[in-house]
This record gives sequence, structure tokens and C-alpha cells, in this order.
Amino acid sequence: MNRPVRTGKDFDEARARILEAAEEQFCRVGYHRTSVADIAAKLGMSPANIYRFFPSRDAINESICGRVVNEVADIAFAIARTNAPAMEKLEQLLTAVHHHNKMMLVKARPMHELIVAATQQNWPIIKAHIERMVTIFEAIIREGVEAREFDVDDTAEAARAVRSAFMPFFHPILIEHCVQHGEDTEASLRDQIRFILKALGKSG
Amino acid sequence: MNRPVRTGKDFDEARARILEAAEEQFCRVGYHRTSVADIAAKLGMSPANIYRFFPSRDAINESICGRVVNEVADIAFAIARTNAPAMEKLEQLLTAVHHHNKMMLVKARPMHELIVAATQQNWPIIKAHIERMVTIFEAIIREGVEAREFDVDDTAEAARAVRSAFMPFFHPILIEHCVQHGEDTEASLRDQIRFILKALGKSG
Repeated sequence: MNRPVRTGKDFDEARARILEAAEEQFCRVGYHRTSVADIAAKLGMSPANIYRFFPSRDAINESICGRVVNEVADIAFAIARTNAPAMEKLEQLLTAVHHHNKMMLVKARPMHELIVAATQQNWPIIKAHIERMVTIFEAIIREGVEAREFDVDDTAEAARAVRSAFMPFFHPILIEHCVQHGEDTEASLRDQIRFILKALGKSG
Repeated sequence: MNRPVRTGKDFDEARARILEAAEEQFCRVGYHRTSVADIAAKLGMSPANIYRFFPSRDAINESICGRVVNEVADIAFAIARTNAPAMEKLEQLLTAVHHHNKMMLVKARPMHELIVAATQQNWPIIKAHIERMVTIFEAIIREGVEAREFDVDDTAEAARAVRSAFMPFFHPILIEHCVQHGEDTEASLRDQIRFILKALGKSG
């Protein structure tokens, strides 16, 4: 690992290995307690070598946060690209994102905690992720308007409103609160999606 | 103040004085740093005397929290009791509650912090307040259905959905986040209310 970095591929592979080691360490001891030295030790390299690939521990945190939110975006993109009617897509997408975030809280709590910190501190990666999600919502809403499933004047405004209306099922702190207090979110999730679809002008 | 408590009125007055002193102290040093001894000192009484009126510091915190949320409920009740059309009432109510919560964050930050703690820790007073607010929403929605302003099958379900859809403008942590990051909530508040009214089936 102390070889000089020659190609972009080498560089990307080394970064990926560092992120994997960091993620493992986060899951073991929490992201607050993970130092660059710990990550380096796991990989049998020097901390200085890590800094060749990431300028700071914050940069490692941000990259891991990026991986986590990219998973959510991948789920959303996959559903958005199907041929289902817009309202079905939106329903599937909101359900899948909620389940993914809830699953992460239960099964990968340290990753969830990283996302909570990133959300509270308004990291650029979270802002970008939210914008990306709102863009996906908007694309689906536009399809729905074209197919006369939805009746919306301003698709960008509607997409932002969908995001706000879905906040309790999307925001890591609010999901955590529900899970902590043993609330069953499944029934209210379905009700909320129905409410959102009605606001978009779905008839029936 | 060390006289024996004789009547219910004496008791209530003493409690009110203690809560006022506690609130002043909260506003000066924050609720985390306020002790029963501080409150007692402010009133020139012994801590033991305070405990005749409140079993614990937590009980004082809960009572103050109750005063804060009662102000919100009073605003909501006052609007709900007017003769305006249901959709106007709902619009006014949501706007007023958001403005009140935002104002508290800016002008009475220690009170806001108390509400954040109460919300995160799920104090019974907060649960009761949320239920009360949802009941007020439901009463207005039912009026709107009767007046054919709204088209809703299940008014209780709709009231819960309104609460969820309005969460970003109602929840102390989410409001704090917006204010902290200098987001202008006024335009999105109006959009969100329009979205909610559309979901309730307001035509036009």
C-alpha cells in the first residue's frame, strides 16, 4: 500500500479500500470514536498514507455519507425508471425509501448516526442528496401530469411539498423517534402516501 | 412564603409564583442549568418549601412545558372557534402556529430548548398536546366536510396526515434547523398549506 499512486484506477481502488475499512470501524465503535489512525491500522498502513487519499477525517466521513445516500438515490432512480404509472412509482418510491432508512437505523445504527450528524450540520452532501430526491419526485410528477394522473400547476413546487409532507418518514431524527417509542409507522405511511397522492390531484 | 398552605387558591398561587421564577431563571441561564435551589433563592424560600408544591425539578419542567404548549393550543382554539370557512381557519391556524413556534425559537430560546428536550424524550405533556392539536384539526376538517369545502372520508386519518404534512413547520428541531441555516420558510409555508388544502379536497 505504500507504493506510489500511478493511475486513477489505483487511486480509486485505494480510496475504496480506505472507505470500506472506515465503514467497518464505524460499525464497530461508532463514527465519533473512529480516528484516521484506527483506519490506517486496520489496513496496515500509516496515517500519513491515508492523508494521500483523503485530506481529513471529515473528508472520509463525507465520502461514507455519500455512499449511504447514494444507496437511497439508487433505489429511487431504479423505481423512477420503470414503466409503471406515475402514482404507482411515487407510492413505491416513498415506501422503499422509508423502509430503507428505517432498516438502516435498526441494522446499521452507526451509519444512521452519521446521517443524523450530517443532516443536523447541513453537510453539502445531504443538501445535494435532498435536491436530487426532489428532482426525482419532480420528474415523476411531470410524467403523471402528462399522463393526466396528476393535476399540478407547478411541478417543482409540488415536488418540494411532497418532500415536506413525507418528512416524518424520511428524516433520520424523526424516524428514530418513532422507532424508539415503538410506534408502528406502516399504517401511517400508507395513509400519508394516500394523502400526498390526493394533493397531487389523483382522482378516485 | 413559609406559612402553611390553607386553601386551594393559596396552593395554586404559590405554584404559579414558583413557575414564574423558574421561567425567569430558565431564560437567564437555560433550563439545564436551573436547579431547585436557584428557584428557591429567587423567591427567598427554602428548596424544601418548593418541594411542597412540586415533587421534583422534572415536575417543574413539565409544568412550564405545559404553559408553553397551552399558549399554542390557545391560539389554535381561538382560530377554530371563529366563524370563518374551514379552509380559511386551517390556513390561519397552521400559519399562526408556525409563526408562534418560530418566534419562540428566536425570542425565548431557553423555552424552545425545553420543548426540544420534551419532544425528544416524549414527555406525556407533548403527546397530549399533539393529540389535542390533531383533535382541533379534525374538528375543522369535519366542519369543512359538512360545508362541502373538503372531501374527506376519514376525518381522523386526514387530521393525522395534516399534522405529518405540516411537521417541518411545527416540529421544534426542524424549525430550528431552517432558522439556523437561514432558510426563508414563508414561501414554503404558503406552498405547503396550499398542498394540504388540496389534499383535503378543496376545489379550485
